[in-house]
Amino acid sequence: MKLASLKHGRDGRLVVVTQDLTRATEADTIAPTLQAALDDWERIAPHLHDLAEQLEHGAVPSFRFHEHDCAAPLSRAYQWADGSAYVNHVDLVRRARGAAIPESFWSDPLMYQGGSDGFLGPRDPIRLADEEWGIDFEGEIAVVTGDVPMGAGREECAAAIRLVMLANDVSLRNLIPGEISKGFGFFHAKPASAFSPVAVTPDSLGDAWDGGRLHRPLISMLNGQLFGKPDAGTDMTFDFPTLIAHAACTRALSAGTIVGSGTVSNRDADGGPGLPIAEGGLGYSCIAEQRTVETIRHGDPRTPFMRFGDRVRIEMKDGRGHSVFGAIEQVVERAG
Amino acid sequence: MKLASLKHGRDGRLVVVTQDLTRATEADTIAPTLQAALDDWERIAPHLHDLAEQLEHGAVPSFRFHEHDCAAPLSRAYQWADGSAYVNHVDLVRRARGAAIPESFWSDPLMYQGGSDGFLGPRDPIRLADEEWGIDFEGEIAVVTGDVPMGAGREECAAAIRLVMLANDVSLRNLIPGEISKGFGFFHAKPASAFSPVAVTPDSLGDAWDGGRLHRPLISMLNGQLFGKPDAGTDMTFDFPTLIAHAACTRALSAGTIVGSGTVSNRDADGGPGLPIAEGGLGYSCIAEQRTVETIRHGDPRTPFMRFGDRVRIEMKDGRGHSVFGAIEQVVERAG
Repeated sequence: MKLASLKHGRDGRLVVVTQDLTRATEADTIAPTLQAALDDWERIAPHLHDLAEQLEHGAVPSFRFHEHDCAAPLSRAYQWADGSAYVNHVDLVRRARGAAIPESFWSDPLMYQGGSDGFLGPRDPIRLADEEWGIDFEGEIAVVTGDVPMGAGREECAAAIRLVMLANDVSLRNLIPGEISKGFGFFHAKPASAFSPVAVTPDSLGDAWDGGRLHRPLISMLNGQLFGKPDAGTDMTFDFPTLIAHAACTRALSAGTIVGSGTVSNRDADGGPGLPIAEGGLGYSCIAEQRTVETIRHGDPRTPFMRFGDRVRIEMKDGRGHSVFGAIEQVVERAG
Repeated sequence: MKLASLKHGRDGRLVVVTQDLTRATEADTIAPTLQAALDDWERIAPHLHDLAEQLEHGAVPSFRFHEHDCAAPLSRAYQWADGSAYVNHVDLVRRARGAAIPESFWSDPLMYQGGSDGFLGPRDPIRLADEEWGIDFEGEIAVVTGDVPMGAGREECAAAIRLVMLANDVSLRNLIPGEISKGFGFFHAKPASAFSPVAVTPDSLGDAWDGGRLHRPLISMLNGQLFGKPDAGTDMTFDFPTLIAHAACTRALSAGTIVGSGTVSNRDADGGPGLPIAEGGLGYSCIAEQRTVETIRHGDPRTPFMRFGDRVRIEMKDGRGHSVFGAIEQVVERAG
């Protein structure tokens, strides 16, 4: 089942979308919003599944689905807890700041509390005041959970995964060192994130979803050029059940909590940082990694962060080349 | 106007409460939840104000208001951005960890993104798995905002303050150093926060509210003993409009955003850390500060953090000794 929220008021209007993302049907008589569906998932999900099946068979009125009409599946959420499960990414980004990662990062997940009061739709511009903040994208996988009790184990956490989406966790690289040095997390350095047009139930992901990881390349394009295609199922040190259990260590998680994977990042065959696309590598899901590799190899970073007018596209395709979640495609614009 | 959410489902049921906190009337025909009222405040607030006036005059059906029936005014919110505006608190707590604060902390607000998907009601137990986490309370003032555009100035931020509440920002002191050293913020060290029974509009706070600070002592009791009574209007380095503007620096804030003051803390007349209540001082709004002062004066901390069965009460009284927000009163219990 694939669900989307068409732009409408603060929370969007829930629709069910065909597997091929071409058509949709209103679901708001079942649940007005995706959050309302998640609040009462056991009761509501079967009705949405029925509707999805009818939609596939042409048995209900439907309309052309346009990704640019979408808000984020949850255009605001009660929680956005973003992990950093591809430790290779953390290692690379810290190297760029001249900092090493402690050994514990390979066994104890990193996670930050993100702002969740207003997410960007998949085609919304990234409006920011200053290019000098070091504007970067971060291509991620994210899951939406049901209620998770405090101290829940891996299995309970795995069973609480309701939906899977893609995310662009927009990051302001030049603000991160100052924010981190204050010890209170990223605050200013993490403006509103964007999510893919549709959220997909795990059962609709087929073999690509193993219950903990999503095994497909995450494709990032920068200004129309392929920038990265690392596999989201590779080098993910902590899988989603582990990340959810980590989030629920000292508190319960409420239905509609979004847990992110962190930037998808693959190491090389020899275990080192991957190569850029231009050199035959798998590339990266953010600019910061490419800059770090450039610094390591050439002494300085060569790829600039995003400027006003730059465009990023983040997408994942199935084995037949069809878009799974629809595309995040965003242009950076000057605010105000 | 004073508003509360009686425990009911995930979001509580909105009621209007008399100024003296003795009686209440259902407001759910005007707005089903406080979030719904905040989403459409310009239209809904006048109706709530009318109802509040009728309630004071006994012109509508009402019932006895019991603080223990309350959920947090927002039992889940889209954002909880907690500042640390009483820099004296930060200075003291860091000293306990052997760390000094940089000079910039006096001019650049500290703020962390808190979990907001499930808040505790004012009389809910603080259920945690392990006493060894170093369980502490933090008495704070918090405001609820309307929509705030990115980059909003102080005046716009001041005008966006809809409601004022008290908060208990429960903190796990022994987990903080490990979490902070990872650079991603407090995550595990900040379990669910609790809020006062009622949220109060600024116009109902009289002279105590100057548009940016709340000038009354915040009373904290630990196991029935007075623990602190620092004035919330004193030594608040950053007022609420400044904190809101800080939160909105790189992104917009959505209606229903909660911004916290951080632990209320007063310095001594000579500018040094305050004295404990037992020595004639104003005391503290968290145990960590008292432990630091003990360490400075005696070489080691003497007051333990909270144990299962310990009880904290946080309250503020007006000039005539009447409770303004009702009391937060919570017992620490073993989870599971």
